[in-house]
Amino acid sequence: MRLSDYTDYCLRVLMYCAAHPGRLVTIAELAAQHEVSKNHLMKVVNDLARQGLLETTRGRGGGVRLLPQPADIRVGEVVRRSETDFRLVECFDLSRNACVLTPVCRLKSVFGAALAAYFEVLDGVTLADISGPVVPADQPAVAFAGRVAAGRQPVSAPVSRRRAALKPEA
Amino acid sequence: MRLSDYTDYCLRVLMYCAAHPGRLVTIAELAAQHEVSKNHLMKVVNDLARQGLLETTRGRGGGVRLLPQPADIRVGEVVRRSETDFRLVECFDLSRNACVLTPVCRLKSVFGAALAAYFEVLDGVTLADISGPVVPADQPAVAFAGRVAAGRQPVSAPVSRRRAALKPEA
Repeated sequence: MRLSDYTDYCLRVLMYCAAHPGRLVTIAELAAQHEVSKNHLMKVVNDLARQGLLETTRGRGGGVRLLPQPADIRVGEVVRRSETDFRLVECFDLSRNACVLTPVCRLKSVFGAALAAYFEVLDGVTLADISGPVVPADQPAVAFAGRVAAGRQPVSAPVSRRRAALKPEA
Repeated sequence: MRLSDYTDYCLRVLMYCAAHPGRLVTIAELAAQHEVSKNHLMKVVNDLARQGLLETTRGRGGGVRLLPQPADIRVGEVVRRSETDFRLVECFDLSRNACVLTPVCRLKSVFGAALAAYFEVLDGVTLADISGPVVPADQPAVAFAGRVAAGRQPVSAPVSRRRAALKPEA
């Protein structure tokens, strides 16, 4: 049970842009930061631009920037759009379902409810909650914790002291 | 984001045994019912036996049967034991994590909370809730619905009229 690398990069590209507001981020910069090929990131960036999440500027001095405010981008929505396979059990895929238990079984409903609970958490968190702005090291970033539905597993909002390692903005 | 076929078969083998109490189920029967090779199912059955969920009897007239009561087997526990990869985002895998955003990002916490919510639903459901006993077609099987945490997406408990298609018990 894992998310695709594609979804991982979609989230990280959006987070990187959110962490560098007010300037264009280049594909070369994203590729270097994430140690992934420019071609792979081009697809990610183009898909996010098509969804209206990024604005791209071509040519010399060009790059990408976040179009909506980070607080208006829900993590759940990004994951829902980028993941193509939610086949939790065979019967999720009706075209391939050969299971003879289907008539009497409630497995599909159970996994459907579990998936809804999963997205309920992700829909309660926005890009602003997870990616910035960078706060001073002595000031804990707890903004998003309150958004996670009460009664869930306690969520820590780690603020690392290593953030100085991040490249300074151009 | 999908579960492995292995987990799917673990659940279905347990459900099939729960739906056929009081007799031994053969590997050949499971293989025929699920249209999957005997070798593949042997691994599933052996792993479930090692976990104390199935009892296996070798030789002529042998087969497998559920060891605990279906009400004592939590779906969440079966999934937790059979899935080996919960790498929802890169930073879940510390050995491979090259993300420069890690210090300032709360993505891992968010996906950790989402995964906890997912398992909270699965842990609230037992094998008894999803696999039987087979009830008359005019009597809706709603037992498990009440177990799914209140406030979650409504869960339907489909009772198909096609259950007559199930092989009669030997």
